[in-house]
Amino acid sequence: MRPRAGEKLADDTLAAAHGLPIHVRSVECLGNCKRRLSAAMLRDGCWSYVFGDLKPDSAADLITGAQLFANATDGLIPWRGRPDSLKRGLVARIPPLSITKDLT
Amino acid sequence: MRPRAGEKLADDTLAAAHGLPIHVRSVECLGNCKRRLSAAMLRDGCWSYVFGDLKPDSAADLITGAQLFANATDGLIPWRGRPDSLKRGLVARIPPLSITKDLT
Repeated sequence: MRPRAGEKLADDTLAAAHGLPIHVRSVECLGNCKRRLSAAMLRDGCWSYVFGDLKPDSAADLITGAQLFANATDGLIPWRGRPDSLKRGLVARIPPLSITKDLT
Repeated sequence: MRPRAGEKLADDTLAAAHGLPIHVRSVECLGNCKRRLSAAMLRDGCWSYVFGDLKPDSAADLITGAQLFANATDGLIPWRGRPDSLKRGLVARIPPLSITKDLT
Protein backbone atom coordinates (compact mmCIF):
# COMPACT_ATOMS: atom_id res chain seq x y z
CA MET A 1 0.00 0.00 0.00
CA ARG A 2 1.41 3.40 -0.98
CA PRO A 3 2.33 5.64 0.61
CA ARG A 4 3.45 3.51 3.51
CA ALA A 5 2.63 4.81 6.98
CA GLY A 6 6.28 5.67 7.62
CA GLU A 7 6.59 7.60 4.38
CA LYS A 8 3.49 9.64 5.13
CA LEU A 9 4.71 10.39 8.65
CA ALA A 10 8.15 11.39 7.36
CA ASP A 11 6.72 13.59 4.61
CA ASP A 12 4.25 15.29 6.94
CA THR A 13 6.91 15.85 9.59
CA LEU A 14 9.28 17.33 7.04
CA ALA A 15 6.55 19.69 5.86
CA ALA A 16 5.62 20.65 9.43
CA ALA A 17 9.25 21.43 10.26
CA HIS A 18 9.47 24.00 7.49
CA GLY A 19 10.90 27.24 8.86
CA LEU A 20 11.76 25.69 12.23
CA PRO A 21 15.26 24.83 13.47
CA ILE A 22 14.36 21.16 13.23
CA HIS A 23 15.95 18.75 10.80
CA VAL A 24 13.94 15.81 9.52
CA ARG A 25 15.42 12.78 7.91
CA SER A 26 13.97 9.41 7.04
CA VAL A 27 16.06 6.31 7.66
CA GLU A 28 15.53 2.80 6.48
CA CYS A 29 15.18 1.03 9.80
CA LEU A 30 15.27 1.84 13.50
CA GLY A 31 15.33 -1.85 14.39
CA ASN A 32 12.19 -1.45 16.44
CA CYS A 33 9.88 -4.02 14.87
CA LYS A 34 7.93 -4.67 18.06
CA ARG A 35 6.64 -1.12 18.46
CA ARG A 36 5.63 -0.46 14.86
CA LEU A 37 5.78 3.06 13.42
CA SER A 38 8.80 4.71 15.02
CA ALA A 39 10.83 7.89 15.13
CA ALA A 40 14.05 8.91 16.82
CA MET A 41 14.79 12.37 18.18
CA LEU A 42 18.35 13.63 18.60
CA ARG A 43 19.99 16.79 19.84
CA ASP A 44 23.72 17.39 19.84
CA GLY A 45 25.28 16.40 23.18
CA CYS A 46 21.92 15.36 24.65
CA TRP A 47 20.10 12.11 25.29
CA SER A 48 18.54 10.55 22.18
CA TYR A 49 14.97 9.24 22.18
CA VAL A 50 13.15 6.52 20.29
CA PHE A 51 9.38 6.59 20.06
CA GLY A 52 7.15 3.80 18.76
CA ASP A 53 3.46 3.06 18.33
CA LEU A 54 3.13 6.29 16.36
CA LYS A 55 0.33 6.96 13.86
CA PRO A 56 0.65 8.17 10.29
CA ASP A 57 -0.77 11.50 11.53
CA SER A 58 1.70 11.94 14.42
CA ALA A 59 3.75 14.62 12.64
CA ALA A 60 2.40 17.49 14.76
CA ASP A 61 3.21 15.57 17.94
CA LEU A 62 6.75 14.95 16.76
CA ILE A 63 7.25 18.62 15.98
CA THR A 64 5.82 19.63 19.35
CA GLY A 65 8.21 17.23 21.04
CA ALA A 66 11.16 18.40 18.98
CA GLN A 67 10.48 22.01 19.89
CA LEU A 68 10.25 21.13 23.59
CA PHE A 69 13.55 19.29 23.19
CA ALA A 70 15.22 22.15 21.32
CA ASN A 71 14.21 24.63 24.01
CA ALA A 72 15.04 22.45 27.02
CA THR A 73 17.80 23.92 29.14
CA ASP A 74 18.68 20.56 30.71
CA GLY A 75 18.91 18.71 27.40
CA LEU A 76 15.96 16.43 28.17
CA ILE A 77 12.52 16.41 26.57
CA PRO A 78 10.29 17.66 29.40
CA TRP A 79 7.40 15.43 30.45
CA ARG A 80 5.11 18.36 30.97
CA GLY A 81 3.61 19.46 27.70
CA ARG A 82 4.84 16.38 25.89
CA PRO A 83 2.13 14.97 23.58
CA ASP A 84 0.55 11.78 24.91
CA SER A 85 1.88 9.81 21.96
CA LEU A 86 5.42 10.71 23.04
CA LYS A 87 4.71 9.61 26.60
CA ARG A 88 3.05 6.28 25.90
CA GLY A 89 5.24 5.68 22.88
CA LEU A 90 8.63 6.06 24.56
CA VAL A 91 10.69 3.05 23.53
CA ALA A 92 14.07 4.06 24.94
CA ARG A 93 16.43 6.93 25.54
CA ILE A 94 20.19 6.75 25.06
CA PRO A 95 22.70 8.96 26.85
CA PRO A 96 25.12 11.07 24.82
CA LEU A 97 28.54 9.57 24.29
CA SER A 98 30.06 12.50 26.17
CA ILE A 99 28.61 11.41 29.50
CA THR A 100 29.48 7.78 28.92
CA LYS A 101 33.19 8.52 28.68
CA ASP A 102 33.79 9.31 32.33
CA LEU A 103 34.08 5.75 33.52
CA THR A 104 36.75 3.36 32.35
CA MET B 1 16.85 -7.43 46.52
CA ARG B 2 20.53 -6.47 46.37
CA PRO B 3 22.39 -6.34 44.17
CA ARG B 4 19.74 -5.48 41.64
CA ALA B 5 19.99 -7.24 38.29
CA GLY B 6 21.10 -4.04 36.57
CA GLU B 7 23.83 -3.39 39.11
CA LYS B 8 25.18 -6.91 38.74
CA LEU B 9 25.17 -6.64 34.95
CA ALA B 10 26.90 -3.26 35.08
CA ASP B 11 29.53 -4.43 37.56
CA ASP B 12 30.24 -7.62 35.63
CA THR B 13 30.43 -5.75 32.33
CA LEU B 14 32.81 -3.19 33.79
CA ALA B 15 35.02 -5.99 35.08
CA ALA B 16 34.90 -7.84 31.76
CA ALA B 17 35.89 -4.68 29.87
CA HIS B 18 39.10 -4.34 31.86
CA GLY B 19 42.03 -3.88 29.50
CA LEU B 20 39.80 -3.51 26.46
CA PRO B 21 39.11 -0.26 24.58
CA ILE B 22 35.53 -0.38 25.84
CA HIS B 23 34.06 2.13 28.26
CA VAL B 24 31.30 1.02 30.60
CA ARG B 25 29.00 3.35 32.40
CA SER B 26 25.81 2.77 34.34
CA VAL B 27 22.94 5.21 33.89
CA GLU B 28 19.81 5.61 35.89
CA CYS B 29 17.23 4.88 33.25
CA LEU B 30 17.07 4.02 29.56
CA GLY B 31 13.31 4.58 29.51
CA ASN B 32 12.75 1.05 28.32
CA CYS B 33 10.41 -0.38 30.94
CA LYS B 34 8.74 -2.81 28.57
CA ARG B 35 11.88 -4.77 27.75
CA ARG B 36 13.30 -5.08 31.26
CA LEU B 37 17.06 -5.28 31.80
CA SER B 38 18.61 -3.05 29.16
CA ALA B 39 21.88 -1.73 27.84
CA ALA B 40 22.84 0.82 25.20
CA MET B 41 25.89 0.59 22.97
CA LEU B 42 27.43 3.68 21.41
CA ARG B 43 30.35 4.39 19.13
CA ASP B 44 31.40 7.87 18.06
CA GLY B 45 29.83 8.82 14.73
CA CYS B 46 28.00 5.49 14.42
CA TRP B 47 24.50 4.19 14.98
CA SER B 48 23.60 3.66 18.65
CA TYR B 49 21.89 0.49 19.84
CA VAL B 50 19.55 -0.35 22.69
CA PHE B 51 19.19 -3.94 23.85
CA GLY B 52 16.59 -5.28 26.26
CA ASP B 53 15.51 -8.60 27.77
CA LEU B 54 19.07 -9.07 29.01
CA LYS B 55 19.99 -11.33 31.92
CA PRO B 56 22.12 -10.48 34.93
CA ASP B 57 24.79 -12.72 33.40
CA SER B 58 24.79 -11.07 29.95
CA ALA B 59 28.07 -9.21 30.53
CA ALA B 60 30.10 -11.50 28.26
CA ASP B 61 27.55 -11.05 25.46
CA LEU B 62 27.71 -7.27 25.80
CA ILE B 63 31.50 -7.31 25.62
CA THR B 64 31.42 -9.60 22.58
CA GLY B 65 28.97 -7.23 20.91
CA ALA B 66 30.99 -4.18 21.84
CA GLN B 67 34.13 -5.70 20.38
CA LEU B 68 32.32 -6.54 17.14
CA PHE B 69 31.08 -2.96 17.07
CA ALA B 70 34.51 -1.48 17.80
CA ASN B 71 36.08 -3.49 14.97
CA ALA B 72 33.32 -2.96 12.40
CA THR B 73 34.54 -1.04 9.38
CA ASP B 74 31.04 0.09 8.41
CA GLY B 75 30.13 1.38 11.87
CA LEU B 76 27.38 -1.20 12.38
CA ILE B 77 27.33 -4.15 14.77
CA PRO B 78 27.52 -7.12 12.39
CA TRP B 79 24.73 -9.70 12.63
CA ARG B 80 27.14 -12.57 12.08
CA GLY B 81 28.84 -13.49 15.32
CA ARG B 82 26.49 -11.36 17.38
CA PRO B 83 25.39 -13.20 20.56
CA ASP B 84 21.79 -14.42 20.40
CA SER B 85 20.84 -12.13 23.28
CA LEU B 86 21.86 -9.13 21.16
CA LYS B 87 19.81 -10.40 18.21
CA ARG B 88 16.59 -11.22 20.04
CA GLY B 89 17.07 -8.33 22.45
CA LEU B 90 17.43 -5.52 19.92
CA VAL B 91 15.08 -2.76 21.01
CA ALA B 92 16.10 -0.02 18.62
CA ARG B 93 18.99 1.59 16.80
CA ILE B 94 19.43 5.32 16.35
CA PRO B 95 21.41 6.94 13.55
CA PRO B 96 24.27 9.30 14.38
CA LEU B 97 23.40 12.97 14.33
CA SER B 98 25.94 13.47 11.53
CA ILE B 99 23.86 11.54 8.99
CA THR B 100 20.65 13.18 10.11
CA LYS B 101 21.90 16.62 9.18
CA ASP B 102 21.78 16.17 5.45
CA LEU B 103 18.09 16.87 5.05
CA THR B 104 16.50 20.16 5.92
